[in-house]
Amino acid sequence: MQDTARPTSTGPGVAAPYTPTDRTVPTRAKERASYDRELVHSILDAAYLCHLGFVRDGAPVVLPTLFGRVGERLYVHGSTGSRPLRNARAADPGLPVCLTVTHVDALVLARSAFHHSLNYRSVVVHGTAVTVTDPEERRIALDAIVDQAVPGRSRDARPANAKELAATAVIRLDLDEVSAKVRTGGPNDEPEDLALPHWTGIVPLTRGYAQPVPADDLDPAIGVPDYLRAL
Amino acid sequence: MQDTARPTSTGPGVAAPYTPTDRTVPTRAKERASYDRELVHSILDAAYLCHLGFVRDGAPVVLPTLFGRVGERLYVHGSTGSRPLRNARAADPGLPVCLTVTHVDALVLARSAFHHSLNYRSVVVHGTAVTVTDPEERRIALDAIVDQAVPGRSRDARPANAKELAATAVIRLDLDEVSAKVRTGGPNDEPEDLALPHWTGIVPLTRGYAQPVPADDLDPAIGVPDYLRAL
Repeated sequence: MQDTARPTSTGPGVAAPYTPTDRTVPTRAKERASYDRELVHSILDAAYLCHLGFVRDGAPVVLPTLFGRVGERLYVHGSTGSRPLRNARAADPGLPVCLTVTHVDALVLARSAFHHSLNYRSVVVHGTAVTVTDPEERRIALDAIVDQAVPGRSRDARPANAKELAATAVIRLDLDEVSAKVRTGGPNDEPEDLALPHWTGIVPLTRGYAQPVPADDLDPAIGVPDYLRAL
Repeated sequence: MQDTARPTSTGPGVAAPYTPTDRTVPTRAKERASYDRELVHSILDAAYLCHLGFVRDGAPVVLPTLFGRVGERLYVHGSTGSRPLRNARAADPGLPVCLTVTHVDALVLARSAFHHSLNYRSVVVHGTAVTVTDPEERRIALDAIVDQAVPGRSRDARPANAKELAATAVIRLDLDEVSAKVRTGGPNDEPEDLALPHWTGIVPLTRGYAQPVPADDLDPAIGVPDYLRAL
């Protein structure tokens, strides 16, 4: 484990990079790794789904879940009965987790099978998730999780009531031991392969949103809100 | 840990479901869980990227990586120097892993923040990854990983040579302790919220491929192959 007790910012207007640790320096493709804070934020903010890993009975568990970012903090929520959230509460001082976000941008087809790859942007966060108990921080976190997928939506939905809040656990993971990894560009074939008769290049992936589909019981007078049109 | 020594098929033409274990029965939303073999295969086969979790120095690590499915076996490859592959070799009898695949199909916007959700299909595989040493199985695995992203591509690329094979580790994870989880449909609002003035429904996500972009050094006589047009 690393000593992660250090400031995450050096002051107003200065976005110092994250400090590399043994866990966040890759064993290979080091040139693809970055600790740039703005790059990390941009990769996180283009996503709302993460894969959260934790250890249960000595074995790894990886579950997809929604997250929200507020500054240098990530929040994940779930049922108070769900395993990671229960474990985060039971663990003292918290639950060791790894939170990973990945975007695939293109398939990379080299002439050689060996050099096939993906263009991608990923962020891996190591740390200790702690249960959030402060009511105001919980409210901010829950809004952030809704707004991470649909910016502006939290202001156009009924906030959680007391019963719902009691059933919802929120955990926080500070952005401290963090790295991004990015691959861009075309295939990297070996010089001796350049004359091979195989198509080579990239296949960009597209992602988008189809037209919103109103629920059957929606009042037809309620049109599609601007924040959905802006997606 | 579960006893996973049981047959994975009951015979020709019979696709018995996976046997639920303590790890693959969710603590909540049980109605979304499935052990159906064809459903699990279909979710895996619509993907080529997984999030692979393992434990390092007692802490979880989750990394995005390519995979390939061959029947009831999943394969992952990597540099012989990369951490999970090195750990799988060093561990006896193998490396405990959790391999997770997730597709997000729609954002689900309920009138209440609490009932916001995603429509998704996910598969979680628990098990022990073992290093593949048999040359023929390694060849099949490496072809499967290439073909998982672009079916047919492995026949139109130079296979790995001896040097590349020596640099590549392949690990296998049997489909044995497996579950799928699927959410479909619209929002599930509380009856007392139906008159609230918030738009409600789903926003379907679209995924696709843009036109392939040939590498700068590709012979212009080599056109886009049929297997790419078929994507």
